[in-house]
Amino acid sequence: MFISETKVRVRYAETDKMGYVYYGNCAQYYEVGRVEALRKLDSSYKALEDSGIMMPVIQLIINFKKPALYDDILTIKTIIKEKPGVKIKFYYELYNEMNVLINQGETILAFVHQNTMKPCNCPQWFNDLFIDFDLKECFERTNIKKNNSV
Amino acid sequence: MFISETKVRVRYAETDKMGYVYYGNCAQYYEVGRVEALRKLDSSYKALEDSGIMMPVIQLIINFKKPALYDDILTIKTIIKEKPGVKIKFYYELYNEMNVLINQGETILAFVHQNTMKPCNCPQWFNDLFIDFDLKECFERTNIKKNNSV
Amino acid sequence: MFISETKVRVRYAETDKMGYVYYGNCAQYYEVGRVEALRKLDSSYKALEDSGIMMPVIQLIINFKKPALYDDILTIKTIIKEKPGVKIKFYYELYNEMNVLINQGETILAFVHQNTMKPCNCPQWFNDLFIDFDLKECFERTNIKKNNSV
Amino acid sequence: MFISETKVRVRYAETDKMGYVYYGNCAQYYEVGRVEALRKLDSSYKALEDSGIMMPVIQLIINFKKPALYDDILTIKTIIKEKPGVKIKFYYELYNEMNVLINQGETILAFVHQNTMKPCNCPQWFNDLFIDFDLKECFERTNIKKNNSV
Repeated sequence: MFISETKVRVRYAETDKMGYVYYGNCAQYYEVGRVEALRKLDSSYKALEDSGIMMPVIQLIINFKKPALYDDILTIKTIIKEKPGVKIKFYYELYNEMNVLINQGETILAFVHQNTMKPCNCPQWFNDLFIDFDLKECFERTNIKKNNSV
Repeated sequence: MFISETKVRVRYAETDKMGYVYYGNCAQYYEVGRVEALRKLDSSYKALEDSGIMMPVIQLIINFKKPALYDDILTIKTIIKEKPGVKIKFYYELYNEMNVLINQGETILAFVHQNTMKPCNCPQWFNDLFIDFDLKECFERTNIKKNNSV
Repeated sequence: MFISETKVRVRYAETDKMGYVYYGNCAQYYEVGRVEALRKLDSSYKALEDSGIMMPVIQLIINFKKPALYDDILTIKTIIKEKPGVKIKFYYELYNEMNVLINQGETILAFVHQNTMKPCNCPQWFNDLFIDFDLKECFERTNIKKNNSV
Repeated sequence: MFISETKVRVRYAETDKMGYVYYGNCAQYYEVGRVEALRKLDSSYKALEDSGIMMPVIQLIINFKKPALYDDILTIKTIIKEKPGVKIKFYYELYNEMNVLINQGETILAFVHQNTMKPCNCPQWFNDLFIDFDLKECFERTNIKKNNSV
């Protein structure tokens, strides 16, 4: 199990008339969560795209428990439980500044060839990132290398 | 069962680098779908808010099957299967211009008092909209009254 | 002078905590306005992209006068005053349901080759759309042909 | 003159079909820039709202020079040149990772009473933040206090 934590501050643009974050915008927070998770695995979504692989989301589930407030710094916990194959699944937990779980969800992404748009296995080099999967923890890793995430 | 159909044209703003609609933006299409569904029921989400009731989304599920393309006119089919109580559930099917199902999903919304933010039953007048629920069909209705949806 | 009018209903997603449309989202309304203006000229932004031309925005100006409200049907008036060359300029006026001007603005877009990303003149066939420029009025045109804008 | 620098990483959600950041999304980056600028002045936009003052944007100008790329860490330079009165003006410069200026712009925001929505002067305590205006530099300040911006 690989766990990554990222922080994001709620923008005014992301709120709606109700005064909280618009429900659809949590999909963006989940994106930030998984992109930073891949970066902590010494990879990046951008590197995957540059190698000709795209990863469209094929399933999104979000369970909303509490509203996300303007200007709050949210913690996005992104969890990978299984090694990737033709798909990769991410689990998410969003916490507010009081460390209260405000929503949780999951996304399944497929690996797809950029040219043919046909499904494919994830690249070998990407799969290799998960060799020591059980040992990996982002917190250890972020201690031993420069973490340039924003 | 109540079925409503609405059309929406894909904006450039809604696409992403992959060339298709960003996955999170489908939540906006679903919003358009349910808001127009309520309007066809002679109600509106705005009327509910004006009466002091808010309806936060508490669950979102989307299964993506095909990409949604720029400038396409999508058909959003919104379905209500059960009468509302403390919650209301909407089902969605999105079709492209070739009438191919591109994604389907569902949302559960809670009824909440605007002042207290406490859950509540849906207002009686809203519940009454569903009295002849089994008989109601938006297609019949849109034939007999002016449909001013955009 | 070519004038096109399009309508758009304000989505909940487009509002913010202030209760009105987020200022940055008016850029999307302007996009809808100019895309429909091109469609009424018997062209489309999509057709331009398919022919290898992209049109990045190089300048955006918006003067906000009144807030845009949730669920309102806004009228986007898009005006082209000069024939396109290496650039094309659009003027916009946004009106609410009471026909009050709520904001006005302008955008300049450049013509760019998709492959080289170098600036270029607009294609001849696009320029030809403006031959009878002074005579053209979208209102006349929309009377004589099917207007399939959403 | 007060200058503040903030960093923001480009999200996939913010790109469009052209492969770059959608022009309207730069308004969000400018929002992040000015919100962090206020925070560095020991204030916050949230504090202003909590005190009953809202700050709608009344003018937005953006001059786009280069595209903003996915996954790039952009630097938002936010500049306040004049003391606030009934309005406040922010200037912005956006730089990519190569330190190339990609766009620059400005916004004017009005001070408005939340209840009446009438224009007003900025609160005295807010004006006082600018007493030593000419001496203030965010870089000095961020050296002497904890900078908790994300």
